[in-house]
Amino acid sequence: MTTTITGADVHDVRFPTAAAGDGSDAINRGDYSAAYVELRTSTGAVGAGFTFTNGRGNEIVCAAIRALLPQVVGRTVEEIAANQVGFWRSLSADVQLRWLGPEKGVIHMATGAVVNAVWDLRARLAGLPMWQYLAEQDTADLVAAIDFRHIADALTPEEATELLERGRTGYAERLVALRRDGYPAYTTSVGWLGYPDAKVRSLTRQAVDAGWRAVKMKVGGPIADDVRRAALIREEAGPDVLLMMDANQVWNVDEAIANMAQLVAFDPYWIEEPTHADDVLGHARIAAAVAPVRVATGEVAANRVIFKQLLQAGAIGICQVDACRTGGVNEVLAVLLMAAKYGVPVCPHAGGVGLCEYVQHLAVFDALRISGSTDGRMIEYVDHLHEHFVDPVTVVDGRYRLPTAPGYSVTLRPSSIAEFSFPDGPAWR
Amino acid sequence: MTTTITGADVHDVRFPTAAAGDGSDAINRGDYSAAYVELRTSTGAVGAGFTFTNGRGNEIVCAAIRALLPQVVGRTVEEIAANQVGFWRSLSADVQLRWLGPEKGVIHMATGAVVNAVWDLRARLAGLPMWQYLAEQDTADLVAAIDFRHIADALTPEEATELLERGRTGYAERLVALRRDGYPAYTTSVGWLGYPDAKVRSLTRQAVDAGWRAVKMKVGGPIADDVRRAALIREEAGPDVLLMMDANQVWNVDEAIANMAQLVAFDPYWIEEPTHADDVLGHARIAAAVAPVRVATGEVAANRVIFKQLLQAGAIGICQVDACRTGGVNEVLAVLLMAAKYGVPVCPHAGGVGLCEYVQHLAVFDALRISGSTDGRMIEYVDHLHEHFVDPVTVVDGRYRLPTAPGYSVTLRPSSIAEFSFPDGPAWR
Repeated sequence: MTTTITGADVHDVRFPTAAAGDGSDAINRGDYSAAYVELRTSTGAVGAGFTFTNGRGNEIVCAAIRALLPQVVGRTVEEIAANQVGFWRSLSADVQLRWLGPEKGVIHMATGAVVNAVWDLRARLAGLPMWQYLAEQDTADLVAAIDFRHIADALTPEEATELLERGRTGYAERLVALRRDGYPAYTTSVGWLGYPDAKVRSLTRQAVDAGWRAVKMKVGGPIADDVRRAALIREEAGPDVLLMMDANQVWNVDEAIANMAQLVAFDPYWIEEPTHADDVLGHARIAAAVAPVRVATGEVAANRVIFKQLLQAGAIGICQVDACRTGGVNEVLAVLLMAAKYGVPVCPHAGGVGLCEYVQHLAVFDALRISGSTDGRMIEYVDHLHEHFVDPVTVVDGRYRLPTAPGYSVTLRPSSIAEFSFPDGPAWR
Repeated sequence: MTTTITGADVHDVRFPTAAAGDGSDAINRGDYSAAYVELRTSTGAVGAGFTFTNGRGNEIVCAAIRALLPQVVGRTVEEIAANQVGFWRSLSADVQLRWLGPEKGVIHMATGAVVNAVWDLRARLAGLPMWQYLAEQDTADLVAAIDFRHIADALTPEEATELLERGRTGYAERLVALRRDGYPAYTTSVGWLGYPDAKVRSLTRQAVDAGWRAVKMKVGGPIADDVRRAALIREEAGPDVLLMMDANQVWNVDEAIANMAQLVAFDPYWIEEPTHADDVLGHARIAAAVAPVRVATGEVAANRVIFKQLLQAGAIGICQVDACRTGGVNEVLAVLLMAAKYGVPVCPHAGGVGLCEYVQHLAVFDALRISGSTDGRMIEYVDHLHEHFVDPVTVVDGRYRLPTAPGYSVTLRPSSIAEFSFPDGPAWR
C-alpha cells in the first residue's frame, strides 16, 4: 500500500512573547512564531513541519510554503523516499523559485518546513520517533538523502558512508546509556538582555539549584554592562558551571576580538555569533584570536555551503545547526557529517518555539550514528511554550529524556493553533 | 516644503518568457518578473522600485515588500535623507523581520525594492537622473548613506571618504567623454542554453555585425556541448571579441577547475558563477586555478558581507553587483567602494527585466566618482522587455547612452502593469 500526500494546511501561528522581554538580545525581540504545515494523506496519517520565525513576516514564510506545495501534494511518500535528492532539488533548485535564495532566507526556511513534514510522515508511518527512524536506517539510505552538489570538495559519498559505518560500532551501548541518562542540555533562560540584574542573579541561582551545569548569557550591549553581568553570573554559578556567551551578530570583527579580550576573564566555554552570520573569514579571524575559547555559530547559517566553509576555514569550534533554517533533515544530515569529518562538536540551536522538540532527535541520532559521543556536546534548552505541543520535550536534571512517540515531535495542539493563529486567533484579536 | 510618503502600491508583474527559451541556462528557466512598488507622496511625486525575480514566487517578494511598508509610509523624504543608516536599518535590521534573512533572500530583495523606490523619489525631487544625483552629492552625504556595520574590517568611513574625494579629480573630463561615447556594454543574447547551434552561430554573427565587441555564452551543460558551442562562437566572433562564459553555479569546485581547463582554449575573459554563490573559499580556489582568466560573480551574492569576503579572499576579478538583490543603493555604494579599494572592476549584473535600466546609473556613477575608469568594465545588455518602461535604456553601437530623465528609470508603463499583472492580467488569463 502506498501513502499519497493529498493536501496540506498552512497556519501562521504566533505567540506574543515580545512584550515579556523573553528572547530579547542584541538583535532580536521576537514574538516566537511558527510557519506551520500539516500534510494530509490518503491513509489518514498526517505529517507536521514548521519553520521558526520571530513574529512579523511569518506570513511571508507561509506564502513560501504554499508556493512549494505543488511539488509535494500528489506525490507518494514511497516515491519521495526512493528519490530523495530528486525530491529535495524539486524544492531547493526549482528553475524559478531558486532565484529567491538561492538556498537561503525565506524560501529555504519554507523548504525546511516542508521537508521536515515529509520526514515526520515517514517516521510516523514507520512507528518510530525520528531519532530512532534515522539511527536504524541503512547507511546507503542515509547517504542517498544527501545532495552532495556544492559540498563534494569537503565531503564525498564515500566519506559519508565511512563515517556512518564507523558509527555502528558501540551503537547498542550508547543507546542504553542515552536511554538511561538522557542527553546533556544547557539553559538560555538566565541572561536575556531584557532582564534586570536582580532577575539574572536569581535565575542563575535557580538554574544551578535545579541541576544545570551549563548556562548561556546574552552579550552585545554596552561592553561594561556585559562585563558586569558576566561577573554576576559567574559569581552565582561558581567556577565549575560552563558559561556560554551569545552576541547575536551585533559586533564587527575587530570589535568582537576587542570585547572578548575583556570577557575572557569569566572563562566562557564559547562565544556564539560574534559577528555577521555570513562572515566565514571574520569568524576565522575571531576564532584564531579568542582560542582556546571556541567560536560557535549556525542558528542562522543559511545552508550546507556556509557550514562547509566555516568548517574548512577552522572558523568554528562548535556547530549550532538549526533544524528548519536549512532545508530540513536532508541538509542537516550533510552538516552533521561534515562537522564529524572536521572534528567539530554539534550543539544544535534550540529555544524559540518548537526548536527543542525538533533538535533533540538530531542530537541523539548524531550521538548514535555519527559522532558517537556526547562529550562537549549539549542541546540548548529554553523553558518556553512547550505546552503547545502534543509531544513536548521532557528535560530532567538538565538532561533531555529520549522521545518515545512516533515522528518528529512538532505537532501543535489544535487548540493552540486556533488560539494563536495570526491575525484572527483570540490571542491576537 | 517637505514630501511625505503617503501610501504605496505593490504589483506582481510577470512576463511569460520561459516558453520562448529566452533566459534559459544551467539553473534557471524564468518568467522574468518584477515585484514592483510605487510610493505615493503628499506632493504628487511618485517613486518606483522593484526587485527582479524569475517568475514563481514573485508573490512572496510582494508580500515581503508589504511587510516593510509600515517602516516607510508616513515618513518624509527629508527625514529619511537626514538619517540614512537609521532608515536602512529599520528595514534590514528590524528586530523581528531580520530573522527572515538576515540580510539575504526574499526579505533583502524586498528591502532593495523599497530602498530603491525612495532613491528614485529623491532623484526625481532633485530633477536629476540617478547617476547624476549620486555623482553630484557631497562626499559626506554619500558616506552617510553606508552602513559600515560588519564591513568595517574591509572599509572604514575614512577610506570611503578618501576614495570619493579622489574621484573628484578629472570628473568633468570623464563626464564629457561618457556623454559623447556612452558606457561600454556586452550582450548576453547570443548563447542561451535553450538555443540550437545554428541560432547561436547566426546570433553571434549578427552581434558582431551590429558592433558588439564582447559577448557572453552560457556553459554548464555537458562539457562536450560547452566546448563545441565555445568553439563555434569564437570562430564566428574572431579572436578580438571578448568572450565571457557563465556557468550559473551549476558546478562543484573541482568540476569548475576541471571544466575550465578545457574551455580556456577559447580565451574567455571571465568565467561567471563557476560554483555556488555562497562559496567564498571555493571561488578563491577556482580563481587561483584559472588565472589569468578572471572569476566573476555577484548577481545573487546576498549582501555586502559576502562581497567583502570575495574581495578579501581574492576570489573575484570582476564584481557583478545587482541593483536590487542587495539592499538597494545604500548597500551598492558600499560594494562599489570596497571593489575600488581592492582594485576589482565592477561590471554590474543586468538582463532579466528592468535590470539594464537600473544598473546603467550605477556604472556611470562608479566611473564618475569612484573607479574613475571604464577600462575592462562593461554593463551587461540583453535586448528583452525594455518597451515596458517609461524611460528605457538606449544602447547604440554596443554602448549605453547616458539617461537624461529624472529618477532611476524603472517606472513601468501603466499599460504594461495592467497587461502583465499576475494572475489577473490579460497576458496570464
